[in-house]
Amino acid sequence: MPSFKAPVEDVLFILDDVLNYQRHSNLAGFADATPDVVEAILREGAKLCEEVIQPLNAVGDREGCRRSEDGSVATPTGFKEAYEAYRTGGWMGLSVPEEFGGQALPMTLNTVMQEFISAANLSFGMYPGLTQGAIAALLVHGSDEQKRTYLPKMVSGDWTGTMNLTEPHCGTDLGLLKTKAVPNSDGSYAITGTKIFISAGEHDLAENIVHLVLARIEGAPAGTKGISLFVVPKVFVEEDGALGGRNAVSCGSLEHKMGIHGNATCVMNYDGARGWLVGGENRGLAAMFVMMNEARLAVGIQGLSQSEVAYQNAVAYAKERLQGRSLTGPKAPDRPADPIIVHPDVRRTLLQIRAFNEGGRALALWAALSSDIAHKSEDPKERQEADDRLQLLTPVIKGVLTELGFANAVQAQQMFGGHGYIEESGMSQFARDARITMIYEGANGVQAMDLVGRKLGRDGGRAVMSFFGEVAAFCQENKDDEALKPFVASLGKSLEHCQAAAMWFMQNAMAKPDNAGAGATDFMHLLGLVAIGYMWGRTAKAALARKAADPGSTERMDAKLITARFFAERMLPETTVLYRRIQAGADAVMAMPAEMF
Amino acid sequence: MPSFKAPVEDVLFILDDVLNYQRHSNLAGFADATPDVVEAILREGAKLCEEVIQPLNAVGDREGCRRSEDGSVATPTGFKEAYEAYRTGGWMGLSVPEEFGGQALPMTLNTVMQEFISAANLSFGMYPGLTQGAIAALLVHGSDEQKRTYLPKMVSGDWTGTMNLTEPHCGTDLGLLKTKAVPNSDGSYAITGTKIFISAGEHDLAENIVHLVLARIEGAPAGTKGISLFVVPKVFVEEDGALGGRNAVSCGSLEHKMGIHGNATCVMNYDGARGWLVGGENRGLAAMFVMMNEARLAVGIQGLSQSEVAYQNAVAYAKERLQGRSLTGPKAPDRPADPIIVHPDVRRTLLQIRAFNEGGRALALWAALSSDIAHKSEDPKERQEADDRLQLLTPVIKGVLTELGFANAVQAQQMFGGHGYIEESGMSQFARDARITMIYEGANGVQAMDLVGRKLGRDGGRAVMSFFGEVAAFCQENKDDEALKPFVASLGKSLEHCQAAAMWFMQNAMAKPDNAGAGATDFMHLLGLVAIGYMWGRTAKAALARKAADPGSTERMDAKLITARFFAERMLPETTVLYRRIQAGADAVMAMPAEMF
Repeated sequence: MPSFKAPVEDVLFILDDVLNYQRHSNLAGFADATPDVVEAILREGAKLCEEVIQPLNAVGDREGCRRSEDGSVATPTGFKEAYEAYRTGGWMGLSVPEEFGGQALPMTLNTVMQEFISAANLSFGMYPGLTQGAIAALLVHGSDEQKRTYLPKMVSGDWTGTMNLTEPHCGTDLGLLKTKAVPNSDGSYAITGTKIFISAGEHDLAENIVHLVLARIEGAPAGTKGISLFVVPKVFVEEDGALGGRNAVSCGSLEHKMGIHGNATCVMNYDGARGWLVGGENRGLAAMFVMMNEARLAVGIQGLSQSEVAYQNAVAYAKERLQGRSLTGPKAPDRPADPIIVHPDVRRTLLQIRAFNEGGRALALWAALSSDIAHKSEDPKERQEADDRLQLLTPVIKGVLTELGFANAVQAQQMFGGHGYIEESGMSQFARDARITMIYEGANGVQAMDLVGRKLGRDGGRAVMSFFGEVAAFCQENKDDEALKPFVASLGKSLEHCQAAAMWFMQNAMAKPDNAGAGATDFMHLLGLVAIGYMWGRTAKAALARKAADPGSTERMDAKLITARFFAERMLPETTVLYRRIQAGADAVMAMPAEMF
Repeated sequence: MPSFKAPVEDVLFILDDVLNYQRHSNLAGFADATPDVVEAILREGAKLCEEVIQPLNAVGDREGCRRSEDGSVATPTGFKEAYEAYRTGGWMGLSVPEEFGGQALPMTLNTVMQEFISAANLSFGMYPGLTQGAIAALLVHGSDEQKRTYLPKMVSGDWTGTMNLTEPHCGTDLGLLKTKAVPNSDGSYAITGTKIFISAGEHDLAENIVHLVLARIEGAPAGTKGISLFVVPKVFVEEDGALGGRNAVSCGSLEHKMGIHGNATCVMNYDGARGWLVGGENRGLAAMFVMMNEARLAVGIQGLSQSEVAYQNAVAYAKERLQGRSLTGPKAPDRPADPIIVHPDVRRTLLQIRAFNEGGRALALWAALSSDIAHKSEDPKERQEADDRLQLLTPVIKGVLTELGFANAVQAQQMFGGHGYIEESGMSQFARDARITMIYEGANGVQAMDLVGRKLGRDGGRAVMSFFGEVAAFCQENKDDEALKPFVASLGKSLEHCQAAAMWFMQNAMAKPDNAGAGATDFMHLLGLVAIGYMWGRTAKAALARKAADPGSTERMDAKLITARFFAERMLPETTVLYRRIQAGADAVMAMPAEMF
């Protein structure tokens, strides 16, 4: 049976030593998040994830969700009780303002908790995850009345939330959206249409579900300019806040999926359901993007989470499974064979996953911290810089952390040989569950286009220039430090590739946009490697400092330094080929007539 | 619903134009395989795969196999009828000598058929595939009596075969094997033990199952030197060839797997089952390796097959699915959106899969042809060279074609967005089924070690030197050809990386074997890229020649040339980083104490 231990120590090291989290104690909520408080919160969250939520992961995969003929949906055995534990623990509102019942703590802490909960049970974590996304959208775009009506109950977890974008013919291209909204006389709208792939669209965990739905008001302009956002509760809310009758929205069927069986992926039918406009008419996309951006960061972390839990189980197996002998002679001569962790190829695989997990975690937390700063700093320049960084890194985190998160789950499964292919090992589930993260919230190709087509050139390239500047300054600052030299030299080289690639796009993609499209995915990975490499550079520096200050940490800090070296020696050099591919441009890619494929 | 069209035209082009198959008409069986005969056979095989076997692929995935309490196993609906069609078509014995009822045609043709059948339905194809492996082992190591007793019925498909190696505690390391063989007074042995992961171990397709079982004769030496091979029929065969009573072997349970649900993966219990020694006492491993090597080539082709069928379905979807507009302006202005094949990132993905499929196919067929030559040539030097090539390429084909075959199935699934995650699309099944190919017949890490630890240095490096020499000669011969220059230059560079890496191992892995282990997987991919790149070089050359000779082929040959260019520009450069990683050696990989992972 697979197990999970939340990486609390590593998170604390990243927050305290790598990101110097305490430096931001002037921000709202940060003063309350003293080191002691942070550690206590994370340990409590870890306990919930390890003891209550993780044991249901296999159950959810095996049982899946069941829809009854009346359209109601039952979640797997135990999910209800676990959700109640999550809800009563106050986790939903960890980073929500106090006026709506939240604890107003930094988003960064919530991001950590998202990793823990996703690693423990991705399907389960999606129920609160989507609710937090809906809360974020209502906080920014909801009217005061909407906030009063919905937020306290959502923050308490009594009600959950969803986002309804996709329709059968309309995924990435929301301009094709057909769901209709017809004004009612009372100021509400009658919403009619079919939405698909609606995660947590119907279930038995909460007494109400607050759907946020994109639809087109009758007579609105075609394309994305005519899309509005509506809040459509499953059960109406009376003036006094009590629950009333059922709205005309229902789950038509559940999808039969490759993974995340424990989450209810619904076809939702809106049959003149009453909904209320959120934000302005035809301004739906902007409102939805608040949810989307938070969600993309969260999905990147989901990808990372599967890599982490798969790694932990692969390591345990590699220490236990006896098979063959070390190339340098028996290491366990008194046993029939050595544990497979003696084999260099096994270690290479594990280190590759580990280097990604720890570096990716630092990157995700850096982005989360940037989100806190962007929202809460009183210094406009600091806010802008943080927002730039967050905007730039969001598609990278979504695309790279999910792509490699999945690949790593597969590699961790590989450590089990044939046993990993058997469902009872749990390793298949990590891979199957991780697979969705490459797809939802914008498939990874879309993330790459968002990065290259939008984020790169925005504000004259301000965000990427600032990022390059920061990494270059780090390299410059540490280039003469003997202990850091190997990391810094490798990072500097990769930074050059990234800068040159960005320059190549400037020179070659303006006149010929296909050159951007053909190199977008490679650039996303290139920037991802540099960003994670930068995190490893800072990690190595922090590890050296900690080791000097606290000899008791030597073993753990040496492990960091070895992993940093592995990343610099074996993973960063990939930027060479990514840059080469980008320079190849679109010619060969576009040359073949469609019918010859 | 997914579909499949067997790539007959591409196979014929590879056989005729790239490999000049007809050049070998002096070999046994080749004279009968005239171009007309080959084409007719392949078209008939294609028809069977497309019309009878492929439609059962989704059925098999959904239904799986069912074991009854009496230990009997039912295959999915329709498998029995499809197997009967395969059997009566004479496909099992396509390349088996006529004296045992076969058609004595080249192995190469059977290899083509293995790709078609695996692409159509991997689970189904395993039943005959394992039988062919068992036939091969008995042909080489069986006594005359064993051949007479078993082969005709196996070749006719009345009986199927299995290979029984794995035990719960013993996979890669066969030295740990515990299954016991105790001599009976009649010259047979009583076999006792538990074997796991036995594909096609029990089913309802054939009236008998011929198990080839590794076991340890009482008192045999420990480790791999004490392993013998036995033939253990499910039903005894009487003197007159009639079926007698049941042997003491039974299916204890079926595994619940990530994929290949249509194949019965059995736990097999041997309770003093009667078996007969195949080959000499304690010579079991050598005998099993005959099966293993054929099986490894076949498994590589299985990986390729899932990439091919996934590609075909992704292409169809990319031409149909309307979403977004081309970066260079609408391409289907009269429709609500353009088909997604206009997007460079979609084409890049598809071309990457295509370049692998066509180049990988050429490589696999080159290896198969080498197998024919190694078995049938009358020239000892030619035989030796062909055998060297086959031995060298087998782990590469197994490791690289399955690793990339799976990765490509995942990328093809990605083209479908959310729809690809839904089981009904069939794209998840391709990925889940392809996943096993990275594991069975020796996990890919084991293939890499076989390549670097055994194949590379064998006979003073004769095989790899000869391979390098052949590729270098091709580059030299064509370096001044204007049209071939881009392919040749890129291939030459990658060849240098491969040669330098081999040299690096010579200099650094003798004294420190961990340096070989740490770079083994990278080297396997490096050699794979060079081998596929060489195939693309030859393909480009053949395409130019065909185009000049037959203007009607221009469109198809241009598609080959574009794909070759894509491979040279975007995939071959990967060798740079593979070589870099190999040079990093084992230091960082081995530095971390096991308990710190």
